[in-house]
Amino acid sequence: MLSKLRDAIAAPAPDVGAAARRHLDHLTKPPGSLGRLEEIAVRLTIVHGGPPRVERPVVFVFAADHGVVAEGVSAYPQIVTAQMVENFLTGGAAINVLARQAGARVVVADFGVADPLPPSTGLVDCAVARGAGNIARGPAMTTAEAIAAIERGAVLAEAAIADGADLLVTGEMGIGNTTAASAITCAVTGADPAAATGRGTGVDDGVWRRKIEVVRRALDVNRPDGGDGVDVLARVGGFEIGGLAGVILAGAARRVPVVLDGFITAAAALVATTLAPNARHALFASHRSAEPGHAWALAHLALEPYLDLGFRLGEGTGGALFIHVARAAAAIYNEMATFKSAGVSGRLEP
Amino acid sequence: MLSKLRDAIAAPAPDVGAAARRHLDHLTKPPGSLGRLEEIAVRLTIVHGGPPRVERPVVFVFAADHGVVAEGVSAYPQIVTAQMVENFLTGGAAINVLARQAGARVVVADFGVADPLPPSTGLVDCAVARGAGNIARGPAMTTAEAIAAIERGAVLAEAAIADGADLLVTGEMGIGNTTAASAITCAVTGADPAAATGRGTGVDDGVWRRKIEVVRRALDVNRPDGGDGVDVLARVGGFEIGGLAGVILAGAARRVPVVLDGFITAAAALVATTLAPNARHALFASHRSAEPGHAWALAHLALEPYLDLGFRLGEGTGGALFIHVARAAAAIYNEMATFKSAGVSGRLEP
Repeated sequence: MLSKLRDAIAAPAPDVGAAARRHLDHLTKPPGSLGRLEEIAVRLTIVHGGPPRVERPVVFVFAADHGVVAEGVSAYPQIVTAQMVENFLTGGAAINVLARQAGARVVVADFGVADPLPPSTGLVDCAVARGAGNIARGPAMTTAEAIAAIERGAVLAEAAIADGADLLVTGEMGIGNTTAASAITCAVTGADPAAATGRGTGVDDGVWRRKIEVVRRALDVNRPDGGDGVDVLARVGGFEIGGLAGVILAGAARRVPVVLDGFITAAAALVATTLAPNARHALFASHRSAEPGHAWALAHLALEPYLDLGFRLGEGTGGALFIHVARAAAAIYNEMATFKSAGVSGRLEP
Repeated sequence: MLSKLRDAIAAPAPDVGAAARRHLDHLTKPPGSLGRLEEIAVRLTIVHGGPPRVERPVVFVFAADHGVVAEGVSAYPQIVTAQMVENFLTGGAAINVLARQAGARVVVADFGVADPLPPSTGLVDCAVARGAGNIARGPAMTTAEAIAAIERGAVLAEAAIADGADLLVTGEMGIGNTTAASAITCAVTGADPAAATGRGTGVDDGVWRRKIEVVRRALDVNRPDGGDGVDVLARVGGFEIGGLAGVILAGAARRVPVVLDGFITAAAALVATTLAPNARHALFASHRSAEPGHAWALAHLALEPYLDLGFRLGEGTGGALFIHVARAAAAIYNEMATFKSAGVSGRLEP
């Protein structure tokens, strides 16, 4: 399945973007005066291969645990991953509130939560194992597990697309996953752990310094091949990150735009784009996270985020807020009058 | 009426903000992890004097013409002001599309359009005169006209608030009005015309240099008193800008938040805040405009914009996009679970 996905991801046709730009220039506004909203409309058109459409957005919140929390890298105990999954299922988390406001469905999936979760009709079971291994001492998972995580994420995305989803938003929960995301970012981009490791949910100076050393050790112990996303995922990644890489690959293969949230989802994009570089064209970086590694990941992906509100929560919260922006871009493209239809005079010729 | 408005605008109570911050820190997210969305929630609470509410936003699009277009400062002919008003009324302009998507009502008012407008039930007649005077050669209007423009804008805002409006978004249309906004910005902030004059709808280098000289001449000829908004408005302003200053004063007096759009609306805020400095607390700078004068105005207002998407259209488009962000902030404040209610563990104590 993974190789079929990779083969299906092609470069976009060059003429679609130019035609979309011409259409925007006929609308009753000075050319380019809606700035990056016009850029989003053009990019959505390129992905879709036709007029942009944001009618059925879906937010994927994938949860998993990380053995590396044993090194004391997080401000919260591991049990919070499971507790927050329950919070997602009862609708009280930030992502529930923001997705509801944006008219988006939320798909909550267990990709490898350590603590037992009560059975719930709302939870999708994609668990590959009960948490990734402690990357400071060994690999996160086997290669087969890495591929399974990616493929299960892709299956969920395929199912949503078959159900009409036209915008896929990536989100996650996993105590310790900024440590894994930093290790992935260093492995793929070549960044130094000191530059690509941040404070996650808000650790103090001492824990932050320890976290940097843990990332350094994870890279030394595991020696991931930065050119191979499956290897990076298996050695220093996490199950929810693998699942999101699968969502990205499935979206790109089916030409459905994929919205990145913050740092963790950007790490998933690094994994996905080493496997299929053209997947990049389907990606929208919703916002600039406060995590320093995020800038490294975005630079490598050649993506410029659209929002900058200092979010550092994850869950897909920045992505959910971006849904409004994407929908605004689509509405501008589809609903505005042209100079001709509205009888508005054009520019004075100099 | 104007002096009553000014007297009603007080400094916010200091304890409301602290209580709102405490509430946000009890919600299931690391403290401050939703960044500036939390800042917006706190500021909305301070203005309202209670939990934030964004249920009935209204966008005010005020239109007027500017005699200064005779100096050749715009890329579009003056008739476009009237044509765009018709476009607003038939729903084909960018602001119609974005307001519709944000669930906001649009109030279109003629504050002084030069070309005759066909009678329409959708258009509010607030016309003070058929366009402002050419500020390069004399005043924009009389002091009585300036006060009338402000008061008519305030009346429209009061009517909307009486009808339940809980967020007022400022928007405008007026060929030539970036020239007036530059002159206002220079008069109030002390900026040099070369620093605070931009390309508006997109003029070329030659027109841009001429525009700078026109702003300089407007200031030399009229000598506005930068400490008195009514004088600034009368000498180098415009009728739609006066109307928007009235909306700002009425919103601040009634404790209803007012969203600024781009450069022109920031100039209206400069006028309003010289008249009532505490009006500033009710203002939200939705986005950073591509116009260089905007940065001067925002610095003077001590406001930091929330979005930066390269908009330079006006009409209230940036403000309309911000409605989603404000609504998200209110929803986070009102709808999220607390750590206690969701049974989620708190931070590890170091």
